[in-house]
Amino acid sequence: MKYYGGIDLGGTNTKIGLLDTNANLIFSTSIKTEAIKGFEDTVDRICNAFKEEVRKNNINYDDIIAIGAGIPGPALDKRVCVGFANLPWPNDLKMADLIEEKLNKPCFIDNDVNVITLGENFAGAAKGYKDILCIAIGTGIGAGIISGGKIISGKKGAAGEIGHLVLVPNGMLCGCGHNGCFEAYASATGIERIANSELVVNRTSSLHELKKVRNIEAKDVFDAAKNGDILANQIVDKEADYLALGISHGLNLVNPSVVVLGGGVALAGDFLLDKVKKILPQYALSATLDGLEIKGATLGNDAGIYGAAYLAMTELGE
Amino acid sequence: MKYYGGIDLGGTNTKIGLLDTNANLIFSTSIKTEAIKGFEDTVDRICNAFKEEVRKNNINYDDIIAIGAGIPGPALDKRVCVGFANLPWPNDLKMADLIEEKLNKPCFIDNDVNVITLGENFAGAAKGYKDILCIAIGTGIGAGIISGGKIISGKKGAAGEIGHLVLVPNGMLCGCGHNGCFEAYASATGIERIANSELVVNRTSSLHELKKVRNIEAKDVFDAAKNGDILANQIVDKEADYLALGISHGLNLVNPSVVVLGGGVALAGDFLLDKVKKILPQYALSATLDGLEIKGATLGNDAGIYGAAYLAMTELGE
Ligand SMILES: [Zn+2]
Ligand SMILES: [Zn+2]
Repeated sequence: MKYYGGIDLGGTNTKIGLLDTNANLIFSTSIKTEAIKGFEDTVDRICNAFKEEVRKNNINYDDIIAIGAGIPGPALDKRVCVGFANLPWPNDLKMADLIEEKLNKPCFIDNDVNVITLGENFAGAAKGYKDILCIAIGTGIGAGIISGGKIISGKKGAAGEIGHLVLVPNGMLCGCGHNGCFEAYASATGIERIANSELVVNRTSSLHELKKVRNIEAKDVFDAAKNGDILANQIVDKEADYLALGISHGLNLVNPSVVVLGGGVALAGDFLLDKVKKILPQYALSATLDGLEIKGATLGNDAGIYGAAYLAMTELGE
Repeated sequence: MKYYGGIDLGGTNTKIGLLDTNANLIFSTSIKTEAIKGFEDTVDRICNAFKEEVRKNNINYDDIIAIGAGIPGPALDKRVCVGFANLPWPNDLKMADLIEEKLNKPCFIDNDVNVITLGENFAGAAKGYKDILCIAIGTGIGAGIISGGKIISGKKGAAGEIGHLVLVPNGMLCGCGHNGCFEAYASATGIERIANSELVVNRTSSLHELKKVRNIEAKDVFDAAKNGDILANQIVDKEADYLALGISHGLNLVNPSVVVLGGGVALAGDFLLDKVKKILPQYALSATLDGLEIKGATLGNDAGIYGAAYLAMTELGE
């Protein structure tokens, strides 16, 4: 059997796993990233943990073909980290070289959302598809796009930045500095900003009492909406409208066969998804909706490990 | 020398040419499409005209490797015409098979905007690039997207429909039936609709007298704006804003190295392009603007022949 390592480098924790070519997870473990100690230290600890798990699981090291890694930022040529928004590490870090040196196996890296997309393609909701739009809706919104079986990376690895499509010119301020981004409205953070702001003047919502105790979270809004709260339902309806508009831009530009929605907001499930599907025909060309499937992600937090291993597999043409 | 045929099937005229692998145009000719006579008749006349020109130019038929064709509608798998918006021909027409039978050479087809994009990549403004967004702004707006050297077609060949991104929810009606599409505002038709509508109430513009005689065209608006007309400049400024917004969506999603603007509206040149470049940083992520080039198309009406031949060349992996 051939094996591929998968590393999912996160701001707080880093997951490390090994998969076979049939998408069986042989092992997975996790370490603290502790980026503050420097990238050399983190890479050392990741590689040591990987080798230790390989030993413990009695895997012949020679059967491990290659390693993939997902990183929280854009990647170039599957080798270089262009920059990290949230880690105190230098730009243009040659992460693939570093890991190759330590593990003595070919290594390939890509942006974390691209890697999640590959994971869902390998073993999750997008299994068997070749044209995929995978959108992660959490504190931010990012997308991975697979076209004809290949991740679209773009010139600087910045493709898939669907969260920063300006849907509302002169709208709400986004973390990127622009106004009116998709992410400013439709991420969990966006829902929370809108809910907490509207509750300053709305005193009839069931969320009003909760707001006295703590800030409202996106999940509170969905829970209240499911229980019939009027304000919460208005917020969810707007959320569905922004999601439909943002998704429609992806549909019209790359015409995928499947849209996979992941991240915390997608956990709202069919309650949200059904609303999005209802609105989509207002925005997306009918040709792009013909036969389109829209699904929730299925791999959850493991998508990164699966995808990183699959990245290595596909880059080597297996 | 190896040669590739290029066919640019249009609603009124069809252009037919032959190129060598160095992008030298050996011949080009044109026939009336006369689609009303049926697709068999049109394909017959195209193929006969091609063979006649080959004879006249003393090209050895064996040196012709393959044929490409651009068609006015989406294409599937480089072989099948999904449907024609403006020709009275059946859906799912196996155009590549028809041409292969007549010409006895492998044939590949794609959507006309994709083919124009390939043309600009082969011999025009996008020569040497691998990540390209080419936008044709004429009576409508369409785009071709090349990522990592490959055209993005999507599941139903409907990728690149940038003209139908809804930029203004509940906005102006578009030909597709939706409201607020990019194309409804920023195509030549959009500019003309806006100008003719605003001239109903504006009597101070230099265009007012012209409007008494005939409908205002997009070129009239650009000419008047260049001459300092206030209303015309307002319309052009809004046009630049819509173009920047629409282009930014393409940049954020596929992160190209070059944007090529073609079609009648692009003939306004730097007067328009400079305004668009100035507004873009409001909408596009700075990472997508880093090193980005924005250029006018250079092949004009020949882009289709060049691109069709190049389609055949690339599909055969030459
Ligand atoms: Zn933003
Ligand atoms: Zn439209």
